Amino acid sequence: MNRTTIRRLQEQVYQANLELKEYGLVTATFGNVSGIDRASGIVAIKPSGLPYDQLSPEKMVLVDLQYNVLEGELKPSSDTKTHVMLYRSFEQIGGIVHTHSTYATAWAQALKPLPCYGTTHADIFHGQVPCTAVMREDQIERDYEEETAVQILETFQLYDYQQIPGVLVASHGPFTWGQTPEKAVYHSLMLETIAEMAILSLNITPGLKAIKKSLMDKHFLRKHGRNAYYGQPGKENR
Amino acid sequence: MNRTTIRRLQEQVYQANLELKEYGLVTATFGNVSGIDRASGIVAIKPSGLPYDQLSPEKMVLVDLQYNVLEGELKPSSDTKTHVMLYRSFEQIGGIVHTHSTYATAWAQALKPLPCYGTTHADIFHGQVPCTAVMREDQIERDYEEETAVQILETFQLYDYQQIPGVLVASHGPFTWGQTPEKAVYHSLMLETIAEMAILSLNITPGLKAIKKSLMDKHFLRKHGRNAYYGQPGKENR
Amino acid sequence: MNRTTIRRLQEQVYQANLELKEYGLVTATFGNVSGIDRASGIVAIKPSGLPYDQLSPEKMVLVDLQYNVLEGELKPSSDTKTHVMLYRSFEQIGGIVHTHSTYATAWAQALKPLPCYGTTHADIFHGQVPCTAVMREDQIERDYEEETAVQILETFQLYDYQQIPGVLVASHGPFTWGQTPEKAVYHSLMLETIAEMAILSLNITPGLKAIKKSLMDKHFLRKHGRNAYYGQPGKENR
Amino acid sequence: MNRTTIRRLQEQVYQANLELKEYGLVTATFGNVSGIDRASGIVAIKPSGLPYDQLSPEKMVLVDLQYNVLEGELKPSSDTKTHVMLYRSFEQIGGIVHTHSTYATAWAQALKPLPCYGTTHADIFHGQVPCTAVMREDQIERDYEEETAVQILETFQLYDYQQIPGVLVASHGPFTWGQTPEKAVYHSLMLETIAEMAILSLNITPGLKAIKKSLMDKHFLRKHGRNAYYGQPGKENR
Repeated sequence: MNRTTIRRLQEQVYQANLELKEYGLVTATFGNVSGIDRASGIVAIKPSGLPYDQLSPEKMVLVDLQYNVLEGELKPSSDTKTHVMLYRSFEQIGGIVHTHSTYATAWAQALKPLPCYGTTHADIFHGQVPCTAVMREDQIERDYEEETAVQILETFQLYDYQQIPGVLVASHGPFTWGQTPEKAVYHSLMLETIAEMAILSLNITPGLKAIKKSLMDKHFLRKHGRNAYYGQPGKENR
Repeated sequence: MNRTTIRRLQEQVYQANLELKEYGLVTATFGNVSGIDRASGIVAIKPSGLPYDQLSPEKMVLVDLQYNVLEGELKPSSDTKTHVMLYRSFEQIGGIVHTHSTYATAWAQALKPLPCYGTTHADIFHGQVPCTAVMREDQIERDYEEETAVQILETFQLYDYQQIPGVLVASHGPFTWGQTPEKAVYHSLMLETIAEMAILSLNITPGLKAIKKSLMDKHFLRKHGRNAYYGQPGKENR
Repeated sequence: MNRTTIRRLQEQVYQANLELKEYGLVTATFGNVSGIDRASGIVAIKPSGLPYDQLSPEKMVLVDLQYNVLEGELKPSSDTKTHVMLYRSFEQIGGIVHTHSTYATAWAQALKPLPCYGTTHADIFHGQVPCTAVMREDQIERDYEEETAVQILETFQLYDYQQIPGVLVASHGPFTWGQTPEKAVYHSLMLETIAEMAILSLNITPGLKAIKKSLMDKHFLRKHGRNAYYGQPGKENR
Repeated sequence: MNRTTIRRLQEQVYQANLELKEYGLVTATFGNVSGIDRASGIVAIKPSGLPYDQLSPEKMVLVDLQYNVLEGELKPSSDTKTHVMLYRSFEQIGGIVHTHSTYATAWAQALKPLPCYGTTHADIFHGQVPCTAVMREDQIERDYEEETAVQILETFQLYDYQQIPGVLVASHGPFTWGQTPEKAVYHSLMLETIAEMAILSLNITPGLKAIKKSLMDKHFLRKHGRNAYYGQPGKENR
């Protein structure tokens, strides 16, 4: 384990947790960000139940991909197993965010996928943001947090996690991910934004249909992929 | 009466009143927090009608469980009798909050209990948050503030006040409680949050059903009760 | 004209205009407050179209009850005639506020009176807040701002302006009033608050009925009138 | 090219971009402002994908009316062709704004023009704010940003761009314009405001009709045109 790398990871995860709060995506402590160092397989994650103003970089708990806490006395987020299982399966991601942000959670509670109603959505998510199935009794009785990941992974058998960097967990709330913790927070913010717009659009035009595939492709691909032309060359674009 | 204990109570109640304002749960002076010292049976409560920026710890009015003002010249909140009657019946609580917060009040005005639509709700309230019956003519003519408590207590013959730390008073607004004034404020904030989400979820899926009992239990019990595993051991968890 | 009194009036009106902005009741310059000195019949009112950050007490334009500007080079608010006509008819009021605040304006645009759905409403407005008739062609062609007052005054033939300190002008927005400019602003804030709650309550329970008269009376009268017991004795209560 | 004029233009465009952010009209980098110097035909526009806190006046990219970047190394906004084509056709405008502001975008996604439901709307937009047609497949395959302008220009064959300073691009979001970048931002803010009010009014009164032509004319013309009497003479009125 490379100390410098890990300290940098903790700093990143800490900053990303603060951003989550700043953007208004969490009420009380209902939200957490993690990040992974792929070389060592070490995950840094927010400690469980601590208020945001008591956090510091070194309090970001370090766990390995078998859920072992590597150092420190704080317990990691109660959602740690969900994060870790996603890191094991989604190999290209470097950060994960879970929130109970108002509008995205409203869709998750409504048990509905978030349709792609416009280009704001298509710029970030290449198609609808899926909603998992409701958890079965036998899943609830097993390891709840692992089963949350199982539900997400089952859902993504039909989706590409790199093109749809987020999901609505039924009756619960959103998870988003990205190449870095910061990007995962950005996806969380954008998911909340489009979730709000979608409710409003539905209000104006009940039964509204998703936009067509060609427009979806155009917007997603002008920001992502080989021929992207949005933003400054060689820079992180947001 | 232990002066030091009482001063600490006043300080707590004062801080909790300020938190109420900070969280955006009150417009003008429509909100109040009280706390009780169980050893002496003394309640500290916000004075009636005073703007939040004119409050100070020593202005928190002290009353006993027979509604007598114990010291000072300020009148206690007009809702004092409601608070005191709840302290007499709900023996395990240490703080009470009343607000007219937007979304919770909207449900109270709509005369509907708040259904448990997701895990954010189930983390705090173990089932639906009930709405009292509409006040009868004879109750309105009697002592209005006492009758408000009577309505709440009648409603809680069917509920456990320790598992459902709040209520919607029909045509009026929410009351919440907790082991401390601070916790009661936290419950008030969470009630407002889930009240908003529930309206949005209903908008997306009209006729939405509450989540199943097993999921409700799982979430409530991972934060509360003997086998709770959320948060840091031995700490207040939020 | 008593200089000191008038300067104090301008200061009050200036402060009230700033409060309007602080409370989020105006977008751009869509809002104005006036106040009257009853002894001299002089009205101080916000100048027309000036951004809030360019206001100062001495810029509050002085006009008499015949619409004459008494001093200064600034034009008074384009709504001045509406204000002045209301002062002539509602003899007990000392301040008037006009805004295009979001929720109250939504009701005015929807051409519906705001029903009394709860005690927050009943604490301030003793019954529904009326909506004027839509302006007739011949009225629009005459003096538009005077006719706005005419519409309000016609509406209040059926209401008591001291018990219902506000109105929704159809297709336009709210006017509120009170004993002082500050109180009129307070009524404007409360109108916006209950207008929001009412939309939400209607969303939850379509076809919701207003609360019964006895509850309305109880809440209004515990704050207003001879036997009021809310707030501190001898103090302004809010 | 007059250096001083161009520097002033960049400063104006920079300030207008900041205002956009301050007013809450953009999430992340989803928004841009441009301005034009009509004498030289030079447009200054926000660089593509740069966060607002990294902007400065000299970073506003200069392009001519044939889309050529005139100096600097930053790429202009990906929406540059849309802006430029509008400048070529709408000869009286000096500034253009594009955002994905929540409520206006909700209408654009709902594929509906924004009806004139009240005088707040009529003060700024002389009639409904149109929504373009959905883009055809062949348009998406051609130059997407040019085709966005084509759609707007086709829509405005039926509207007067000086009386309706904005449009909803179907499935996308709003564009607004004005005599200066600052005025275009103001129109963007007002469009967002009336878009919100309109959704709320529709909620209260489903099937609500637009206000009548005579009231629309009265309000628009008291602020605009030869006989305008709103605001201070000889001043920018808002």
